[in-house]
Amino acid sequence: MGGDRAPDIVVEGLSLSLKRHPAVRFILFGQAAQLEPLLDRYPDVRAAAEVRDAVGVIGSGERPSIALRSGRNSSMRRAIDVVARGEAAGVVSAGNTGALMAMAKHVLKTLPGVDRPAIAAMFPTMRGQSVILDLGANVECDADNLAQFAVMGEVFARKVIGLEKPSVGILNVGQEHLKGNMAVKKAAAILQDCDLSISFHGFVEGDDIGAGTVDVYVTDGFTGNIALKTAEGTARLYTHILGSALRFNWRSRLGALLIAPALRKMRSRVDPRSYDGAIFLGLNGVCVKSHGGTDAVGFANAMKVAVELIADRVNEGIKEDFCRLYAGRAVGPELALG
Amino acid sequence: MGGDRAPDIVVEGLSLSLKRHPAVRFILFGQAAQLEPLLDRYPDVRAAAEVRDAVGVIGSGERPSIALRSGRNSSMRRAIDVVARGEAAGVVSAGNTGALMAMAKHVLKTLPGVDRPAIAAMFPTMRGQSVILDLGANVECDADNLAQFAVMGEVFARKVIGLEKPSVGILNVGQEHLKGNMAVKKAAAILQDCDLSISFHGFVEGDDIGAGTVDVYVTDGFTGNIALKTAEGTARLYTHILGSALRFNWRSRLGALLIAPALRKMRSRVDPRSYDGAIFLGLNGVCVKSHGGTDAVGFANAMKVAVELIADRVNEGIKEDFCRLYAGRAVGPELALG
Repeated sequence: MGGDRAPDIVVEGLSLSLKRHPAVRFILFGQAAQLEPLLDRYPDVRAAAEVRDAVGVIGSGERPSIALRSGRNSSMRRAIDVVARGEAAGVVSAGNTGALMAMAKHVLKTLPGVDRPAIAAMFPTMRGQSVILDLGANVECDADNLAQFAVMGEVFARKVIGLEKPSVGILNVGQEHLKGNMAVKKAAAILQDCDLSISFHGFVEGDDIGAGTVDVYVTDGFTGNIALKTAEGTARLYTHILGSALRFNWRSRLGALLIAPALRKMRSRVDPRSYDGAIFLGLNGVCVKSHGGTDAVGFANAMKVAVELIADRVNEGIKEDFCRLYAGRAVGPELALG
Repeated sequence: MGGDRAPDIVVEGLSLSLKRHPAVRFILFGQAAQLEPLLDRYPDVRAAAEVRDAVGVIGSGERPSIALRSGRNSSMRRAIDVVARGEAAGVVSAGNTGALMAMAKHVLKTLPGVDRPAIAAMFPTMRGQSVILDLGANVECDADNLAQFAVMGEVFARKVIGLEKPSVGILNVGQEHLKGNMAVKKAAAILQDCDLSISFHGFVEGDDIGAGTVDVYVTDGFTGNIALKTAEGTARLYTHILGSALRFNWRSRLGALLIAPALRKMRSRVDPRSYDGAIFLGLNGVCVKSHGGTDAVGFANAMKVAVELIADRVNEGIKEDFCRLYAGRAVGPELALG
């Protein structure tokens, strides 16, 4: 029931998703009265789905703490519950991000050794695509949080994007090792010294995001959220400027017609819907958040991300790497800081 | 002597600057042997400039603390010294940002009530242009620092951009007042309660930067640096993608020819050189940093920013507003936090 155009685009998105992954089966939580007519329109989804009536809906403005306390009968909570019970392999929602994270953390718990789950997403770069985390789950992060994000992001890039040896960078205000705050400096030290064979590139800067200098960008949730949204806003500004140029006079309108096919082709590379699906990494279960304003294509992409997280056993990979991250140390973060 | 192509582009930039501001006079600090042949090429600059031989040069990789201790005979330090002595009204440099800030802070000191100077810059938006600060002078900021940046940025937007009532926003991970860390929440409270008639918009997000939702974006130096560089990187990515589309096949190449004039016109609106000139706000003197990789056009723009800061008496405006920011309070920041 979450997102601006739910449940319509969810059911339509599932239909698209079935074309890509015909074997996937769904448990749909929501108001049956709204879902039934939609399933009449998409018999393929009906055949693959079981509907469980859920009266409650978490509003997009609901505070996570309130959602956690009083949202036990919401579609969102019940969808998370079936993952915890092992009835479903993962949950996908286009609803309230904060509520989804709070409830998923409470119900699914974190993987062993993970202090805080992070929100990760893929985005287009000059070189292809990269991953960035955290995007807002943690507005304040210490060195251990950042180092753990690095490990989780690296596993994701290796298993889901399929890179053999993904490079990892920590976002900072300069590349020199003296730059930045204590958290990034200590996190860099942890990654340099740890037993994992992570290809740690060192510090990267904001303009490295578009350049695709590394495969995994690690940052705190405050900076990551603002950086990724800044990139989105800048993309809109440039699209707007190009649009104005193409409508400028008869000559540029004619030119616009000629370049339209090539432009469409290039734009598809940076279509936000192709990057829909924010991944909650570090939870003991798969949880993917589709964009609140998404459409069926975007939601189907979020589904694809969830299917890949499950099929590629990302959480198993994180568990293995966390054992090695803290190997030889009594236990966990405090000691890792040395 | 600072910047990748100094002193050539500096002298060439001064020539461009003289066309815009014929009354401005320069004191040029640098290696006379290098400067003299350049001044032969630009007699207009020679007529308006006095050369003072400075043997030392601060390297672009020099640590600010080292520059501060051992750079007393550098061109950069001596240019700052003449501002402190009142011989010059302001200093412009394309050199090492950290060293320039450290030396300017040490020599010029801060304006009364200003705890920390900030680096501000203008940038293009959907609506025109806006200001953002801090861009890296302070990697960690408390609520008072942010509130002070807001006041300084507002004065700048009012006096230099010429806006009657500039709107001010604090960058955050959401617009709701419950979002974010303590520093942004407390800074918002200070701005809402203070005696200044600042048009405080509240929290803004990363995508508001490109949209131009407010005139002044306030943030800590870590986030601001990464956000602005992310915008630059994204701009390069989109320019790259458009370039690929325009070269895609004969049809798009022909289209490219047709849209070229309109595109040039539109692109000039977002030309980074038009936004060259990072402003060190809060110092007791005018100090402007031109981009290290700038050319003559960019350097001339940084000169324009410095001339405007002086002519529009921005520092006088900051002094006045700081008196009112702390009016009725014993003195300064600690009490302002309540």
